[in-house]
Amino acid sequence: MPAFRVPLDDIRFLLHHVHDGAQLAALPGLEEATPDLIDNVLTEGAAVCEKVLFPLNQSGDAEGVHFDQGTVRTPAGFKEAYAQYRAGGWTGVSSSPEYGGMGLPKTVSFIMEEQLCAANLSFSMYPGLSHGAYSALSAYGSPEQKAYYLPKLVDGSWGGTMCLTEAHAGTDLGILTTRAEPLDDGSFGITGQKIFISAGEHDLTENIVHLVLAKLPDAPAGTRGISMFVVPKRFPNPDGTAGAPNGVTCGSVEHKMGIKASATCVINFDGARGWLVGEPHKGMRAMFVMMNGARLGVGLQGLGLSEVAYQNALAYAKERLQGRALTGPKNPGGAADPILVHPDVRKGLLRIKALNEGMRALSVWTAIRLDLEDRHPDAAVREEAADLLALMTPVIKAFFTDHGFTNANLALQTLGGHGYIREYGMEQYVRDARIAQIYEGTNAVQALDLVGRKLPMEGGRPVRRFFALVKGAVDAAAADPARAEFAKAQGAALGLLQKATMWLAERGADGS
Amino acid sequence: MPAFRVPLDDIRFLLHHVHDGAQLAALPGLEEATPDLIDNVLTEGAAVCEKVLFPLNQSGDAEGVHFDQGTVRTPAGFKEAYAQYRAGGWTGVSSSPEYGGMGLPKTVSFIMEEQLCAANLSFSMYPGLSHGAYSALSAYGSPEQKAYYLPKLVDGSWGGTMCLTEAHAGTDLGILTTRAEPLDDGSFGITGQKIFISAGEHDLTENIVHLVLAKLPDAPAGTRGISMFVVPKRFPNPDGTAGAPNGVTCGSVEHKMGIKASATCVINFDGARGWLVGEPHKGMRAMFVMMNGARLGVGLQGLGLSEVAYQNALAYAKERLQGRALTGPKNPGGAADPILVHPDVRKGLLRIKALNEGMRALSVWTAIRLDLEDRHPDAAVREEAADLLALMTPVIKAFFTDHGFTNANLALQTLGGHGYIREYGMEQYVRDARIAQIYEGTNAVQALDLVGRKLPMEGGRPVRRFFALVKGAVDAAAADPARAEFAKAQGAALGLLQKATMWLAERGADGS
Repeated sequence: MPAFRVPLDDIRFLLHHVHDGAQLAALPGLEEATPDLIDNVLTEGAAVCEKVLFPLNQSGDAEGVHFDQGTVRTPAGFKEAYAQYRAGGWTGVSSSPEYGGMGLPKTVSFIMEEQLCAANLSFSMYPGLSHGAYSALSAYGSPEQKAYYLPKLVDGSWGGTMCLTEAHAGTDLGILTTRAEPLDDGSFGITGQKIFISAGEHDLTENIVHLVLAKLPDAPAGTRGISMFVVPKRFPNPDGTAGAPNGVTCGSVEHKMGIKASATCVINFDGARGWLVGEPHKGMRAMFVMMNGARLGVGLQGLGLSEVAYQNALAYAKERLQGRALTGPKNPGGAADPILVHPDVRKGLLRIKALNEGMRALSVWTAIRLDLEDRHPDAAVREEAADLLALMTPVIKAFFTDHGFTNANLALQTLGGHGYIREYGMEQYVRDARIAQIYEGTNAVQALDLVGRKLPMEGGRPVRRFFALVKGAVDAAAADPARAEFAKAQGAALGLLQKATMWLAERGADGS
Repeated sequence: MPAFRVPLDDIRFLLHHVHDGAQLAALPGLEEATPDLIDNVLTEGAAVCEKVLFPLNQSGDAEGVHFDQGTVRTPAGFKEAYAQYRAGGWTGVSSSPEYGGMGLPKTVSFIMEEQLCAANLSFSMYPGLSHGAYSALSAYGSPEQKAYYLPKLVDGSWGGTMCLTEAHAGTDLGILTTRAEPLDDGSFGITGQKIFISAGEHDLTENIVHLVLAKLPDAPAGTRGISMFVVPKRFPNPDGTAGAPNGVTCGSVEHKMGIKASATCVINFDGARGWLVGEPHKGMRAMFVMMNGARLGVGLQGLGLSEVAYQNALAYAKERLQGRALTGPKNPGGAADPILVHPDVRKGLLRIKALNEGMRALSVWTAIRLDLEDRHPDAAVREEAADLLALMTPVIKAFFTDHGFTNANLALQTLGGHGYIREYGMEQYVRDARIAQIYEGTNAVQALDLVGRKLPMEGGRPVRRFFALVKGAVDAAAADPARAEFAKAQGAALGLLQKATMWLAERGADGS
C-alpha cells in the first residue's frame, strides 16, 4: 500500500547546483565520473530501489528471517532480489576496479545508500555489511587477504560482517573475552561468542567473511589489547571458491522490534581458524575504518526512513478528507477538505520536509568530502576533508537517526489510526528507524565521541574549520538580498554553537 | 523477563499525605471508603495486576488475537484471567451497588486504571470499554435500558463498546453514514460499518453491548444530527440471559503496531435492532460522557506504560556492567561499573521518574475531583470540580500520552541493543504506548479541545480557577523555607502559562 519514489530531483539539485559535484571528475581516477554519468547511475539505482527492493519491504517485515538448526533463510524474494542487485554490479559501485568494482566516486554509493535504506532497510544491511568488510580489508588486509576476499566481496558472491559485541560487552568493548590462540602455521584459533551480528548468517551468499575482534594471549587489558581477525565461514579454496567449513556456527537469531528481514545473529566461534588483519592489538584502529563508514551509513538509514515516511504521509494528507479548513471549505464539492488544509498537519509535514532536505544537503556535501579525502592531489585539501569527516561522523549518525525516528513517528501521526495499522506501512518505518539510534554506538556514545574526541582533536582544528565554512556561508548570504533575511538567524545560530563549543572546550569531557 | 510492581508507596503518599484522600469518606454514599479500606482494595488490586495480568502481557503480544469467520479468540490465558478478574468484582469497583457494583469512590478505580494499563494494556481495554458503556448508559439510558444492561456490565458477564469511527469518518464524525430507520415497535434498524472498534468482538463475555452513533432519517447535517443507540450483539431475554443473535457481525480485526491482544474490529450492522439512548440527534452529548472518561483513561495508559518501562530500565541500569564512572570505579571488583553511574543514563532515568511522579500526583488529584463532582453536597464545590475536570481532560490525555511514549522510548534506549529485542519487553511498551497519542481524539484534537472549547468555557472560569489554585500553591511554597527555592521557578512557569493563555484568548481558535 505505501509507495516510494527516489527524490532524484533534489539529489541532482544538490549535486549539480549546490555542492559542485562536477569537481569529482577532476579527481585522479574519477575522470569518467562526469555529472551525466553520475546521473545515469543514480537513475538506474533508483529503479532498483523502487522496483526490486521496495516491493519486498512490507512482506519481508511480515515474514522475517527463519532460523532452523544453524541455518538462516531470508524472506521470500530476497534471494532473487539480491541476485539481481549483484548482477547489476551494485555491490561494488565505489569499489576499486582492481577487484572488479565500478570505481565510481564514493559520493555515488553514499547517495544511493539513503535510497536503499528508504526502499528496504533490512535488505540494505546485507550488502552494507559486506561493503564495510571490504573497506576494512582494503585498508588493513595483507596482499594475500585482499586477493582472496576483496573480489568476492565486490562481486557480492560472499558477504561480510563485523563481529564486535559480546553478551557482556557492547559499548564497553575493552572487556570482551573472545580469545585468539596462535597456531603453528601463523593462523589463529578463535574461540568465543558474538551477539547482535547483522548478516551473521543467511542464504544470500555462498560464503561469509567475518571480521572478528578478539584478544591474543599476551594482550594488554582494555581496548588497547584488541586485535582484528578475518574468519571465513568456509575456507577459501586456492581457486577462489568456498571450501571446507570453518568452526563458525549461528546459535540463534534475535526477535526484534523492527528490521525483521535483517538476520541479527548469535555467532559462535569454536576454535575457528582466523588470520590477523593489521598489527596485533591494533584491531580497534582497523575496525574503526569499518565503523566510521557504518556510522555515516546508519545516519543515512535515519534520513531514508524519514523520506519514505514523509512521502506516504504527504500522499495521505492530500487524499484523506476530514473536517473543513478554518478559512472556509477548500473542497466544497466533497464531504470534507483534505487534511493537508489543517495547520497542525501542515506544520508536521513541513517540519519533516525541511529536516529531510537539510539532512540530504549535508549528506551530499559529506559524500563529496569522502572522495576529496581519498583522492585530491593536494594534501591540505585531503587533510581538511578528513578533519570535517571526523567531526561530522558522530553528528550525522546521531542527528539523522534521532530526527529519522522522530520524523517517521510524526509521519505516522498524520495518518491517525491508520498509521497504527500494519497495512499502511508507517508503523514499520517507526520500528525500523528505532534501531538506528542504538547500533554502531548509541547516540549517547556519539555525543561522547564528538565532545571527548572530535572537538579537542588536533587542538580544535576540525571544528574551527567547520566554523570558518559556516561563517563564509553566512557572510555570503548576508551579502545577497535574496538570502539576507536568513543570514541573520544563521549567524545567531552559529554564535550560539560557538559559545556552546567554547563552554565544552573549557570544561573538557571529564564531567567537571 | 520484565517485571512490574505497582507503586503502592507512591500512591499511598499521594492519597493520604498530599491530596487528602480522607475527604472521600465524608462524601454522601462513600462513608465506608476510609483510607484503610481504600488501601486494602488497592493492595488486592495490585496483586491482580502483578500476578494475574502482567504475566500475560508478553505472551498476549506475541500471540495476538485470532480471527476466524466472524469470531475472535483472545490469546491464551485471557479468558481465565478475565474470569478471575470478574470473580474479584473488579469490573464494578466504582459502579453503583444498585446494579451490583462495589460502590467505591471513582478515585479507587481511577488509580487502579494506571496499574491495569501498566500490567497489561491490551487486557485493560476489555473491561475499560465495558465501564465506558456503563457510564454512558447510567447517564442517559432509560430505566428499562439500565435494568437490562447495567447489572451485566457491572458483573462483567457482558462487555461494552463505543462505535464511532467509520472508514471515511474518524476525527470528523459529522460525516458518518450509519443509518437508523425507525421500526414499528419503537426500536430502530441500524445499518452501517464501524471500524477501529476496540473489544468489538471477543470470547471473554457471553454478550457485547454496542453503543453506536448513527443518523435518523430526519437528522440535520453534521454532528448535530448524530444519535446514540444501544445495539446488543445478542438480544437480552426477559430473564436477563443473552438470547437470539442481532444483525451484528465482526468483519475482520486489524493487524497493529501494538496492543495486539486487544481486538480492534470492523463491526457490520446489517439492519441490526437498536434502541435510542437519550434524545434524538443528541448522541454526541451522550457519547461524550463515555469519551471524557475514556480520554482520562487513555492518559493513564501513557503513565502506566511509562512506569513499567521505567522500572525495567532502572533494574537493567543497576545490573548491566559497562564502562567506568568518570569519577573513578564504583564497582572496582567487577569488570566494569553498573551503567547507572553514567551521567546520560542517570539523566534519562531521572527525567522519566520525575515525570511519572508528577503525572501520578496530578492523576490522584484529578481522581478525587471525579468524586467531588459526583457527590459533594455543596453545588459550588461540584461546579469547581467539574470545571477543573473539563479543563484537565485534554491536558491529561495529551500530556500523559506524549510523555508516556517518549518515556517508554527513552527507557528502551537505556537497554541499548537489548531494548530492541522482544524478550526484554521494552519495545512492546513503546509499541503499545504509541496508540494512546492517537485514539480517543489525536493529541492535536486534544489541543483544539483545550484552546477552542475549554479555555473560553464559561468566560474562562475553569482556567482562572486553575491559575488561582496554582498561585495558592506557589505562595504557600514561597512561605516555606524548605520549598522556597522551588517556588521561584514555579511562579515563573505560572507566569509564562498565564501569558500564553492570554495570547490564545486574545486570538481565539480561528487561527487569526
